[in-house]
Amino acid sequence: MTRTARAYTNIALIKYWGKKNKQLKLPYTNSLSLTLDRFYTDTKATIIDSDKDVVYLNNQLLDDTQNKRILNYLETIRNFYSFTDHFQIDTVNHVPTSAGFASSASGFAALAAAINETKQLDLSRQELSILARNGSGSASRSIYGGFVEWQAGHDNESSFAVPIDETPEIDLALLSVVINKHSKKISSTMGMENSVKSSPFYPNWVTLVSSEIKEIKQAIAQKDLQKIGEISEHNAMSMHALTLSADPSFTYFAPETIRIIQLIQELRRKGLFAYATIDAGPNVKIICTKESLPKVQTYIEQQLSDVTTVVANIGPGIQYI
Amino acid sequence: MTRTARAYTNIALIKYWGKKNKQLKLPYTNSLSLTLDRFYTDTKATIIDSDKDVVYLNNQLLDDTQNKRILNYLETIRNFYSFTDHFQIDTVNHVPTSAGFASSASGFAALAAAINETKQLDLSRQELSILARNGSGSASRSIYGGFVEWQAGHDNESSFAVPIDETPEIDLALLSVVINKHSKKISSTMGMENSVKSSPFYPNWVTLVSSEIKEIKQAIAQKDLQKIGEISEHNAMSMHALTLSADPSFTYFAPETIRIIQLIQELRRKGLFAYATIDAGPNVKIICTKESLPKVQTYIEQQLSDVTTVVANIGPGIQYI
Repeated sequence: MTRTARAYTNIALIKYWGKKNKQLKLPYTNSLSLTLDRFYTDTKATIIDSDKDVVYLNNQLLDDTQNKRILNYLETIRNFYSFTDHFQIDTVNHVPTSAGFASSASGFAALAAAINETKQLDLSRQELSILARNGSGSASRSIYGGFVEWQAGHDNESSFAVPIDETPEIDLALLSVVINKHSKKISSTMGMENSVKSSPFYPNWVTLVSSEIKEIKQAIAQKDLQKIGEISEHNAMSMHALTLSADPSFTYFAPETIRIIQLIQELRRKGLFAYATIDAGPNVKIICTKESLPKVQTYIEQQLSDVTTVVANIGPGIQYI
Repeated sequence: MTRTARAYTNIALIKYWGKKNKQLKLPYTNSLSLTLDRFYTDTKATIIDSDKDVVYLNNQLLDDTQNKRILNYLETIRNFYSFTDHFQIDTVNHVPTSAGFASSASGFAALAAAINETKQLDLSRQELSILARNGSGSASRSIYGGFVEWQAGHDNESSFAVPIDETPEIDLALLSVVINKHSKKISSTMGMENSVKSSPFYPNWVTLVSSEIKEIKQAIAQKDLQKIGEISEHNAMSMHALTLSADPSFTYFAPETIRIIQLIQELRRKGLFAYATIDAGPNVKIICTKESLPKVQTYIEQQLSDVTTVVANIGPGIQYI
């Protein structure tokens, strides 16, 4: 009986921004995330008698252009573990794009875990994190629940995530504010590349992350919510400062992004706990306490007509179901 | 016969962002600007038999809170040149706030020149630039027309502007796009202070400006319009990256600022010459050629309802009329 692997998405509080090695997805810096409970991917791998893999996403067969990244990844796995089997991959995404999260973190973590299960590779979670990282950098963190640190390392074996606190007893929740309008998208891979290559501030980003990782781990240990919020917001904005200072300058911000940042500042002036974090896109995730979240949600929905808000709590690591 | 001094405002293409010495307004870096023809301040100083200065702005007598900065400045001038006269200052501002420019550059340049005239101080333009700088840093540049560099220096005597090309034969014009909504304003003084103190990227800004000043002077000499536009836009966005990466993070951008940046990128994709520069506020100034400007203006006005656009060309230095 082959079990289905379930992996949850995660939100980086200290961002991953810049690849030292593109092929191996080795980052320039450590990063630190919170795994979320509501958004996950379920993936099952079945060995098939074929020399081609087939991939079903949400019960739809993907064609050769849609599944290219997955096929390349399966090929990588075969090379790593020296087997020749091909698979039917059945994957169901519970990370709706309308929730403002990328599905690559949960997607590649679930896929790595599914192959581990089907081929009985018996990988440790560290090995699984390395394998997931080869699919998508941020997937390395989705192996664990709660607070997770991805240690940059220097080669394939030394770059993996470690759990900081898998079931933190901490009063945090996340409100994702999704802007209901699409604009031209710059991929995070392109954005990172341009930032590393051309932002005069990139060297200082590397130094900054190293000190903010230390600070936020201390804040997590002390359950200092305000410090966690402050460091997270500063780190995210500094990442976006890298895009603004790239040459040519670019930004993931939409007009509404600025509006939401302004509203968050207003909410804080009203005494509510609310801090912004923003990934490689226009949507804003608001770090709240369980108490502040409903008030923050109501205020944002009152002030902005063209957004969708989605709530997430702290989630677990990889599961087999 | 005391003549009226007229000074024009200027737009920094390489920004002044950070004071090494607050009292003397000594900057951390050089900066480079273009003097504009449409926005200017006319100021006349008359010696009065009184131990108090009086200031009329646009024919209105300013009260003791409104004129504080000017009175302090006049006191500074008396100390510099060891005289005791007090003045009636008549100043008329032709820098409407609706044009999106600060009036402090033209204002303090005109005031310095007016005192120079009335007191027959016979200052060289270099000395006048130093004197104007003591009122407002950017005023040091408004002494000259065309392209002007403010050399940071290291003390009061060595920090002044020099002309790069006072009457450049170059096909550039400026479109100021003013957002017709007011939001809370962070003064540039506060913004600079916070950036210097808390942005992890500030040290790299100093290095960046030093190389971009060299590059843009070369581009000006070669009349390489595209290079001038590119360097100016990158420098402005990098300045705003300093505010975003300050701790706590802040931004001068309004939602509409991002929208205008997006429109400028669209205009460039259409093949039109348009580059953004943004000061310590939400308004965007678009660097155009004389040919592109009307098309850029029409497009911006079509796309955005709640903005005012104002055109400016290259302007002259201090005049006495």
